[in-house]
Amino acid sequence: MSDWVTVATQSDLADTSRIEAFSDGVFAIAITLLVLELHIPEPEPDERLWPALVQEWPQFAAYLTSFAVLGIMWVNHHSMFRQIRRADRGLMFLNLLLLLWTALLPFPTNLFAEYLRDDTIDAHVAAAVYSTNLTLAAIAFSLIWWHVLRSHLVDHNLTPSEQRASVLRYSIGTLFYAACIGLSFISAPVTLLVQFVLALYYGFEQLRTRSSAVA
Amino acid sequence: MSDWVTVATQSDLADTSRIEAFSDGVFAIAITLLVLELHIPEPEPDERLWPALVQEWPQFAAYLTSFAVLGIMWVNHHSMFRQIRRADRGLMFLNLLLLLWTALLPFPTNLFAEYLRDDTIDAHVAAAVYSTNLTLAAIAFSLIWWHVLRSHLVDHNLTPSEQRASVLRYSIGTLFYAACIGLSFISAPVTLLVQFVLALYYGFEQLRTRSSAVA
Amino acid sequence: MSDWVTVATQSDLADTSRIEAFSDGVFAIAITLLVLELHIPEPEPDERLWPALVQEWPQFAAYLTSFAVLGIMWVNHHSMFRQIRRADRGLMFLNLLLLLWTALLPFPTNLFAEYLRDDTIDAHVAAAVYSTNLTLAAIAFSLIWWHVLRSHLVDHNLTPSEQRASVLRYSIGTLFYAACIGLSFISAPVTLLVQFVLALYYGFEQLRTRSSAVA
Amino acid sequence: MSDWVTVATQSDLADTSRIEAFSDGVFAIAITLLVLELHIPEPEPDERLWPALVQEWPQFAAYLTSFAVLGIMWVNHHSMFRQIRRADRGLMFLNLLLLLWTALLPFPTNLFAEYLRDDTIDAHVAAAVYSTNLTLAAIAFSLIWWHVLRSHLVDHNLTPSEQRASVLRYSIGTLFYAACIGLSFISAPVTLLVQFVLALYYGFEQLRTRSSAVA
Repeated sequence: MSDWVTVATQSDLADTSRIEAFSDGVFAIAITLLVLELHIPEPEPDERLWPALVQEWPQFAAYLTSFAVLGIMWVNHHSMFRQIRRADRGLMFLNLLLLLWTALLPFPTNLFAEYLRDDTIDAHVAAAVYSTNLTLAAIAFSLIWWHVLRSHLVDHNLTPSEQRASVLRYSIGTLFYAACIGLSFISAPVTLLVQFVLALYYGFEQLRTRSSAVA
Repeated sequence: MSDWVTVATQSDLADTSRIEAFSDGVFAIAITLLVLELHIPEPEPDERLWPALVQEWPQFAAYLTSFAVLGIMWVNHHSMFRQIRRADRGLMFLNLLLLLWTALLPFPTNLFAEYLRDDTIDAHVAAAVYSTNLTLAAIAFSLIWWHVLRSHLVDHNLTPSEQRASVLRYSIGTLFYAACIGLSFISAPVTLLVQFVLALYYGFEQLRTRSSAVA
Repeated sequence: MSDWVTVATQSDLADTSRIEAFSDGVFAIAITLLVLELHIPEPEPDERLWPALVQEWPQFAAYLTSFAVLGIMWVNHHSMFRQIRRADRGLMFLNLLLLLWTALLPFPTNLFAEYLRDDTIDAHVAAAVYSTNLTLAAIAFSLIWWHVLRSHLVDHNLTPSEQRASVLRYSIGTLFYAACIGLSFISAPVTLLVQFVLALYYGFEQLRTRSSAVA
Repeated sequence: MSDWVTVATQSDLADTSRIEAFSDGVFAIAITLLVLELHIPEPEPDERLWPALVQEWPQFAAYLTSFAVLGIMWVNHHSMFRQIRRADRGLMFLNLLLLLWTALLPFPTNLFAEYLRDDTIDAHVAAAVYSTNLTLAAIAFSLIWWHVLRSHLVDHNLTPSEQRASVLRYSIGTLFYAACIGLSFISAPVTLLVQFVLALYYGFEQLRTRSSAVA
């Protein structure tokens, strides 16, 4: 057993690649399982299919939003892991924490869609559960990045101020998602819309940041 | 958008391979989830299982068609990405757009199977929803190819006329699928049959094109 | 079809690996989706959980058999593709045909479990549907191997008699499965048992064959 | 069985990687399918959503425990296979045995959640079924490690006493899980809690072992 550690050398790149493969699997499955929550409408005898489908718009809106969120999370996971050279157990566990919130997302998505048009407090609770899930995922992302910097697992050297800037960036994202928990108690549909816009923005923002970093 | 390309460095080959792995995952899951829509028939007390299974032919026909469509899409995705040397964020997002329609397909497949024998406008609506999904997937394929050529992400140099020819080829495929939206309002079963034949044809056509390109 | 081979260039090894990755995905998903067909029993108010679980033995027997079948199919797919050096479109399409029967298996598994104890012709029909699915998968395996030999896609040279022997071996397996279609009309439970034993035997037989071939 | 080893040739590293890819797939799918067992509560007309969600805590507790168990199993599978240099058929079959219990876990998880608050023997039976599943998975892990050592498939040489120590470690884990079968008949909720703590402990224990080995 004493020589297990000695294993940690040249094959550590392989480590990262298996974490990435496992994560890709969970992201790909979660994003594809979302479709199972879309149900065929059963129109009344005197109702037609098309209005019944249109009536189900909260399901499609929640599907689209969660697809965008999981898609962007995958892109960001991908970008983050491209910078990680070595994997340790801590990274594995924090990554599992992130995957926990990733794999769970179909449940609050379904909950959100089901209660979006409810005119009681239930709509707000469903929106808050959804927003809490995303906030916890954002926190997991921050923890991974913080651990990676702290344990020198990245393949480049950031100055302390660059490190602070990169950690700050993740924290701001987390604050946005946390703010959505509050927003949930004002309007559930607006919360869903903001989540969707946030996903798109996050994608483009990361994009801009990285490009300028390269330049 | 003009600075997306500048990201391209030496580790971009790895990038493409992780996009491919994620896409393979979504294709593989979507194609396998189709089976969950096949339901065990519950024959009446005086009915036997075999005629009840035969009675469910629309489910099997829709299953087979969507399996063929997703299979060919995977083969073409594979062919396309073999020619892509570098990945940028634009490619990632356009690929996510394609995967959105890929992952969604089990829903319209189920809808189509459920309403195929309906004798009202609902059968046409279900067929049109299915055809629209495939058209949007074809458009996403075209966008990927257009972006890839425009941003010089391919590993070969096509002359402008070759580029136009290859983009045209995708556009024609998109037109075929769009025409199926119209066909949906004439006959739902014929639309399903045409989609199936189109999938087979598309597979063989691509095949011929590539071989002649090599020769 | 004669010009499929000309496509083969240096990047064809990558091709095989992506076919394998996609196939692994479908095998892994199909084998894991089987669990969705196991339902929590709902015992009567005066009934206990344990006898209700025992009562559900056909579901567990069908689950175990299909798990063994898919597991062995994956092992054999793996063995076969280790010998394949190059991939062409024909291989891709025949592999998709195999994956069609692989991905479909959860449906006849469910059907078989549901009707195993039925005392009408329905039990025989369900068993025959299951056996037909396995027979079609075995035929797809034979076709892949036949195509691979014929198009010189393997990484070794077999003499004509060795080729005949290897094709014959697959044909015998197919005959076994086809015989199970007949057996289905004699006894459904015996058919399930034979399929399970056949899966185990097939695994060990392949094992012996390969080892002796190496020696 | 003695001639399994002779199969090992130069392409055996590829073998291990495809076993790992397939296993990663099954682990990723099983861990993500768990979410399908979480059902949207249907509160009574005079009941609110939030208490109805809280009321469902056994489902969330079982989800979290199984997620932790499968996550740690994946981490350990990963650690074990990093030390395995060559794969033979025996390893493939024992690995399939492990995957059988992995893929099955969503079923006892659901069973456990459903009966956790039952005040009859059924709660104990459900807990025992869950614990038995984990025990069988632990035994499969031991068998793999025993086979790997016995057939010299590892990439390092352990002395006989180191081998005994490493096999013993797995056996102790198996005993812990087996003890949970007994604990199930004392208290179902305590059993779930112990399984969760055991998963965390197992993760950290492995972690600590590796770290100290580094020092």
